[in-house]
Amino acid sequence: MVNFANFREIGRKIVCVGRNYKDHAIELGNAIPKKPMIFLKATSSYVADGKPIVIPPGCENLHQEVELGVVISKEAKNIQKDQWQDYVAGYVVALDMTARDFQNEAKKEGAPWFLAKSFDTSCPVSNFIEKSAIADPHNVELYCVINGAEKQRSKTDVMIFDIPTLLEYITKYTTLAPGDLLLTGTPAGVCRVLPGDVIEFGITGIIKSNVTVQ
Amino acid sequence: MVNFANFREIGRKIVCVGRNYKDHAIELGNAIPKKPMIFLKATSSYVADGKPIVIPPGCENLHQEVELGVVISKEAKNIQKDQWQDYVAGYVVALDMTARDFQNEAKKEGAPWFLAKSFDTSCPVSNFIEKSAIADPHNVELYCVINGAEKQRSKTDVMIFDIPTLLEYITKYTTLAPGDLLLTGTPAGVCRVLPGDVIEFGITGIIKSNVTVQ
Ligand SMILES: [Mg+2]
Ligand SMILES: [Mg+2]
Ligand SMILES: [Mg+2]
Repeated sequence: MVNFANFREIGRKIVCVGRNYKDHAIELGNAIPKKPMIFLKATSSYVADGKPIVIPPGCENLHQEVELGVVISKEAKNIQKDQWQDYVAGYVVALDMTARDFQNEAKKEGAPWFLAKSFDTSCPVSNFIEKSAIADPHNVELYCVINGAEKQRSKTDVMIFDIPTLLEYITKYTTLAPGDLLLTGTPAGVCRVLPGDVIEFGITGIIKSNVTVQ
Repeated sequence: MVNFANFREIGRKIVCVGRNYKDHAIELGNAIPKKPMIFLKATSSYVADGKPIVIPPGCENLHQEVELGVVISKEAKNIQKDQWQDYVAGYVVALDMTARDFQNEAKKEGAPWFLAKSFDTSCPVSNFIEKSAIADPHNVELYCVINGAEKQRSKTDVMIFDIPTLLEYITKYTTLAPGDLLLTGTPAGVCRVLPGDVIEFGITGIIKSNVTVQ
């Protein structure tokens, strides 16, 4: 019996979706995607409990992106949309920390996003949330508060591509495995974070987590 | 004692370098990079022994890229160039299979390279080569032969960024761990592969491996 509370140790990849909330795509001046825009974060990006986010060398514009995460329960290839719940072990709330300056440079050059997305400490996550604690993951509210000021708050029902669509799309190409994490995109309100900032991120009424920027 | 012959099961990431041979950068019409261009392949990309490469859905231009791989021996952050050998468990020869049409679309849109690089079976690898079997990894010859016709052949001494430079650069940002694989880029000669093709790839006098395209 797998203990999914240890998903950070069990999983081997973090599969992420970019521009999955219309208001966030617009705030960064990006087009609304016609198909899911997928990228990886390395599992070495997870922040160990109680540790801070460390700004990567040379980054001058580090952003937080609060996201709903889906922890995969079993090997998954060619998931059928109506079977998606069978592949979910539970959920987390996460920050997809993004070196926006590195990402802008990569986008301009048609280069990959590794440096922008997979630096150490780029993935703070909450504790594991049992699947039974969230009746409908498309009907929860994400929020992010920095130094007491609210920056992001959105229902998940406005995702452009919902979780079944994402799981179907990704597993057409790539097998997911137990403990892998799917990050489902961020709503508007991303902003620069600075050393000393305290970031609270959560799902209203369900879980909250804190992390400090070093 | 870790058995690095099982690096495919132990490792949690494949860190790759693009455009690390001048002749290959030029053949694809790309600029010579001023710093290493890093991306990830998921470990779910490894091809199981004896299994074929499966062209991902919709891909009409799948390319092979023969590359020298470095298997990491221990946790590595901020590697100093002159210490690089301490972090090497051994080597492999690999194919960084690339959906070139997906990659060209991503490059044009400033989008990440996930679909082009991390589909299932996109990383055939040879057996593990003990570190002692390669005195100097910058002084070996890579080759790739498809259906008996030679497509790629190059010494590794012409890498733009050598292995110590790559390890120093990557671990400034991202921790490497035992079993992680570094793919060091491909020389010229990449081409479209088709169903039924038999690809032989190797390091002259040291190892060879075979894989079929389904
Ligand atoms: Mg994000
Ligand atoms: Mg990428
Ligand atoms: Mg390559």
